[in-house]
Amino acid sequence: MLLNCDLGESYGSWTMGLDARVMPFIDQASIACGFHAGDPLTMQRTLALAAEHQVAVGAHPAYPDLVGFGRRSMSLSRDELIANLHYQVAALDGMARAAGLTLTYIKPHGALYHDMMHKPEVRDALLQATASYAAGGEPLALVMQATTAADALRAQARAAGVPLLLEAFADRCYTDDGSLLPRSQPGAVHEREPMLAQVAQLCASSTVTTHSGRVLALQFDTLCVHGDNPEGVAAIADIRALAKAG
Amino acid sequence: MLLNCDLGESYGSWTMGLDARVMPFIDQASIACGFHAGDPLTMQRTLALAAEHQVAVGAHPAYPDLVGFGRRSMSLSRDELIANLHYQVAALDGMARAAGLTLTYIKPHGALYHDMMHKPEVRDALLQATASYAAGGEPLALVMQATTAADALRAQARAAGVPLLLEAFADRCYTDDGSLLPRSQPGAVHEREPMLAQVAQLCASSTVTTHSGRVLALQFDTLCVHGDNPEGVAAIADIRALAKAG
Amino acid sequence: MLLNCDLGESYGSWTMGLDARVMPFIDQASIACGFHAGDPLTMQRTLALAAEHQVAVGAHPAYPDLVGFGRRSMSLSRDELIANLHYQVAALDGMARAAGLTLTYIKPHGALYHDMMHKPEVRDALLQATASYAAGGEPLALVMQATTAADALRAQARAAGVPLLLEAFADRCYTDDGSLLPRSQPGAVHEREPMLAQVAQLCASSTVTTHSGRVLALQFDTLCVHGDNPEGVAAIADIRALAKAG
Amino acid sequence: MLLNCDLGESYGSWTMGLDARVMPFIDQASIACGFHAGDPLTMQRTLALAAEHQVAVGAHPAYPDLVGFGRRSMSLSRDELIANLHYQVAALDGMARAAGLTLTYIKPHGALYHDMMHKPEVRDALLQATASYAAGGEPLALVMQATTAADALRAQARAAGVPLLLEAFADRCYTDDGSLLPRSQPGAVHEREPMLAQVAQLCASSTVTTHSGRVLALQFDTLCVHGDNPEGVAAIADIRALAKAG
Repeated sequence: MLLNCDLGESYGSWTMGLDARVMPFIDQASIACGFHAGDPLTMQRTLALAAEHQVAVGAHPAYPDLVGFGRRSMSLSRDELIANLHYQVAALDGMARAAGLTLTYIKPHGALYHDMMHKPEVRDALLQATASYAAGGEPLALVMQATTAADALRAQARAAGVPLLLEAFADRCYTDDGSLLPRSQPGAVHEREPMLAQVAQLCASSTVTTHSGRVLALQFDTLCVHGDNPEGVAAIADIRALAKAG
Repeated sequence: MLLNCDLGESYGSWTMGLDARVMPFIDQASIACGFHAGDPLTMQRTLALAAEHQVAVGAHPAYPDLVGFGRRSMSLSRDELIANLHYQVAALDGMARAAGLTLTYIKPHGALYHDMMHKPEVRDALLQATASYAAGGEPLALVMQATTAADALRAQARAAGVPLLLEAFADRCYTDDGSLLPRSQPGAVHEREPMLAQVAQLCASSTVTTHSGRVLALQFDTLCVHGDNPEGVAAIADIRALAKAG
Repeated sequence: MLLNCDLGESYGSWTMGLDARVMPFIDQASIACGFHAGDPLTMQRTLALAAEHQVAVGAHPAYPDLVGFGRRSMSLSRDELIANLHYQVAALDGMARAAGLTLTYIKPHGALYHDMMHKPEVRDALLQATASYAAGGEPLALVMQATTAADALRAQARAAGVPLLLEAFADRCYTDDGSLLPRSQPGAVHEREPMLAQVAQLCASSTVTTHSGRVLALQFDTLCVHGDNPEGVAAIADIRALAKAG
Repeated sequence: MLLNCDLGESYGSWTMGLDARVMPFIDQASIACGFHAGDPLTMQRTLALAAEHQVAVGAHPAYPDLVGFGRRSMSLSRDELIANLHYQVAALDGMARAAGLTLTYIKPHGALYHDMMHKPEVRDALLQATASYAAGGEPLALVMQATTAADALRAQARAAGVPLLLEAFADRCYTDDGSLLPRSQPGAVHEREPMLAQVAQLCASSTVTTHSGRVLALQFDTLCVHGDNPEGVAAIADIRALAKAG
């Protein structure tokens, strides 16, 4: 099982995340590209850290909204979406090459990720942007959320010529339709024990138990973890151990 | 003789330059990368225009100063300079590849260009940034101003492993030390006739006649032209005709 | 009849609008505050121009989206909306005072204006922001679009303690519900003659004839005009003459 | 003795400083205005905190350089400097009034502060900007560093009609000319004990003992303290106690 984590989300003098402590435990680092976080120097340092720990790198592009950390939906046109994606992916792609790394995937951030899952025209634009970006070697994969609609998402991506990486969440509570319980609701984010139980269940049977108690099958390729604070880092180490054992 | 021009300097709803009218006459388009001008959509459109007219493309990176159009010097550290250059060059490089083009050179913009010519530590950082950016195929060239110190600049670039492109200016009046008469002084920018005379002289003998009347030898590889207004575009067409005839 | 116009929409080296030519003909200048357009120097110059022509000044705040010129809707929280409005209004208010002027109204720009008219929670936040901003003397007015729902809008504003300025449009074609025909549709923007006819009708009877031919009563306090190009400026002069005659 | 501290330096999702813990111990809060730090919501919250603790508020404007946190010198023209100062001061001034507070002073930040102390044309522009900004009631004071040239600074400020607030530093080691030992040098920032000794000496005799051991007289009006981390906050509490005792 692969573990992915959002990294490189500091900006100038502001620090966010414990990148150096998280990097040893993960397989895929989704690196901010400057539009919601991640200035050029931060990107360079995060790439160097990924190279040191032989972690695969992906671009983590966002809406152009630094002060909102990319968490506010914006109504971009299809052309704007594609150009904004290309710009951010290209910036990280070239810096990754300069660091001896090869970019392998794109994971949209925040509101862009959410809109990709809920607005067909945004999803379509992101698939198109991924397909039309020529990284050089292998085509880039696009990360989407593993939901109960995985087959439809895979078909759509296949039609666009884009490899898909479906991701499940370690610490988020699921609803019956395979989406995440909104953060505003109690129980949305698991504590350590239920989180480890959810990971163990995902490893063992590719299922999650939803908020209502239903067992849901989830096709997934990678597991999203968070390392914003010491507890998160400890949890990632636990998940890593669990995944190895699994 | 090659003609280069700064293009893609619009930003969002603001237009600058007559890119579509200039592109047919030039050989090299130096394209803004988003830090002083040039949003993602503008970059994409400028690249498409370059592809249509088979014009070589270069990155035109700047200090991160949109409101100042990159014309105000900023005291960046060496690490910041290199990372800022890599980010901008990479963004354009990847977008160029997606447009079927290959980036061939870097020309710093505005205050960054001026600081490169006048501050050894900035020049050194830009040479290092150019050398360490791996565009894929051929190493990228760095554009510097053709001055009387051309031999020293070439030696410095050679030591850094960076191909140099020295540029002369069609419409700017030179001083005796081979630098440009500041724009604040009368006669700094040539009218049509003296500009064409300067280009003819550059073509014929690789010399310019300075403000004081001295004849100065200038080694140069490319000629910088400007297309901000209809007069500028007409002048570029004249220069193109002259260069073909020469 | 009062004429209002959006001004101060240049940014750094990029020019937009013919402010110096428009100012003599209008009564109210809605000045960009830096979030969609208008850097500090542009704001200062626009205020000086307003002072010279004794034109009333209003703040023209927007979503924080420079590259999108504030034309893209963004999902800001109520607290973010209020703080973003206060910041922009305050910046212009203080600069207006330094120029010897008194800010009298707020007119939201672009997508923020559109959202104010169509999303009750945005309208409510803007009313609250206007009411809670203490400019010093008289309370600031808020500009909204004159629609057939004018009475409801006035009641809502009165409840919030905010004076309302309803604006009609000189050059935009109306639909039967009193909203504007979207720019994407043919006939959305009037040519000179139908525009002058619309203004004359607004002056004479406070009505407009809609796209379908219906005559619609519109309560309005001010008329919005545009001066982005020479034709627009000429039209404003014509409207001014018409309004004086009316 | 007055204590001042730079606050409101968070930005969007990034937190900096322990504002809520520092505010109870200080007399003057210098609040970031959005150009190097401090988004509108952060400004509003910092002002509310100042109101709660009845702390005087000042504007803390900077060069427009978010990613560089205003720590990199930029070559702005005199007009740009004045307009940038007015914009930032006005934004905070209006928000302060909306919070029931009155802005009383301006303290330039980072590289702008440094340039004010070392470049006469920058100092002159800032004095001019302060004098020409009309906050409403009392003229705003400008904070400068207390050096051995205090008399000259006071004369210059008096000529410009600007009240001056000279500040000494609690935790920084001084050189013999009354400037601060650069942070790059060992001993530049005092540990707890020498810091408290320096404060005690400042309280008792308005002198500091420099790096070389010389005793230097410093005219000062306010003491700058830092609250970026728990140690800093504890130190501020200690200084507060000392100042009260003194």
